[in-house]
Amino acid sequence: MKLTEKTLERNMVFQGKIINMRQDKVELENGRTATRDVIEHPGGVCVLPLTDDGKIIMVRQFRYPYQEVLPELPAGKLEPGGEEPLECGRRELEEETGMTAEEFLSLGTMYPSPGYCEEVIHMYLAKGLHKSVQRLDEDEFLEVEQLPFEQVLEDIMEGKIKDAKTQIAVLKAARLLKK
Amino acid sequence: MKLTEKTLERNMVFQGKIINMRQDKVELENGRTATRDVIEHPGGVCVLPLTDDGKIIMVRQFRYPYQEVLPELPAGKLEPGGEEPLECGRRELEEETGMTAEEFLSLGTMYPSPGYCEEVIHMYLAKGLHKSVQRLDEDEFLEVEQLPFEQVLEDIMEGKIKDAKTQIAVLKAARLLKK
Repeated sequence: MKLTEKTLERNMVFQGKIINMRQDKVELENGRTATRDVIEHPGGVCVLPLTDDGKIIMVRQFRYPYQEVLPELPAGKLEPGGEEPLECGRRELEEETGMTAEEFLSLGTMYPSPGYCEEVIHMYLAKGLHKSVQRLDEDEFLEVEQLPFEQVLEDIMEGKIKDAKTQIAVLKAARLLKK
Repeated sequence: MKLTEKTLERNMVFQGKIINMRQDKVELENGRTATRDVIEHPGGVCVLPLTDDGKIIMVRQFRYPYQEVLPELPAGKLEPGGEEPLECGRRELEEETGMTAEEFLSLGTMYPSPGYCEEVIHMYLAKGLHKSVQRLDEDEFLEVEQLPFEQVLEDIMEGKIKDAKTQIAVLKAARLLKK
């Protein structure tokens, strides 16, 4: 098998506020044609801020698609014009939690839903935290909380934390830190 | 803070093959209005099939949004009409890998990208595998491979496996199985 698909047509069907939707026409490896729904997204970053005494700084916010308040790691979208992931991580960490960090260690990337979405999320572990000033957007509402690493890990294993990037970053950090 | 948003208008802007896109108007807790892009998705299931000798059965397929062949756990979408996640997991495991399993253990759920997407992915660990018959859709192309659990775990930690559901299911299973 070649495992590839050839783009025959790219059709932008809707341009949203954060995301765009395309519906492309492709040629499969058996010569037939098919339709591919694609969500365009600029990419994002999430940061696991770890305090010197072993706590993770999390944010809680209302997530409209699920109609639920979710506990998540601080995160945000890359700014247009080619913002570097690490720069975005520093910015979002400070904006959402009012903290800066001395050290950022990569926790790799993740593809949220590769069947139809092109978003890439870059993940970092941030250490050596210092207090700065929280700067939320005018229309951004979230609560910041500090939870022991072990508590967050337990909440993930028990299904209480559902956000994908948070589950991956914490589970990977747990292996790296031998927790 | 109340951490809630009130729907003022629901606007379907495009109905795709797998997903639909809405652009809703909401009232924020400060009384202002905002726009929310929402991807509607039926939900999905992924299965971590673990052989008696400690190997994970994975699939490799071309993922159009990334233009990459990705290693992933077998997975699929819930059928319309309220298919149960476990039933979907059994079906997708057999269709994609040609295997059945005696035992399915829940690995919880995950929300791929909660800012704009309503997809929920249910994850299972499948044990007691038996050979059956692979039944791919006519336009589905994938390669099946068996890899040692430790190898998959290492590939995740080194950033070689990017799919979110695969990272979460394997990392959670590793904790449960004390690997």
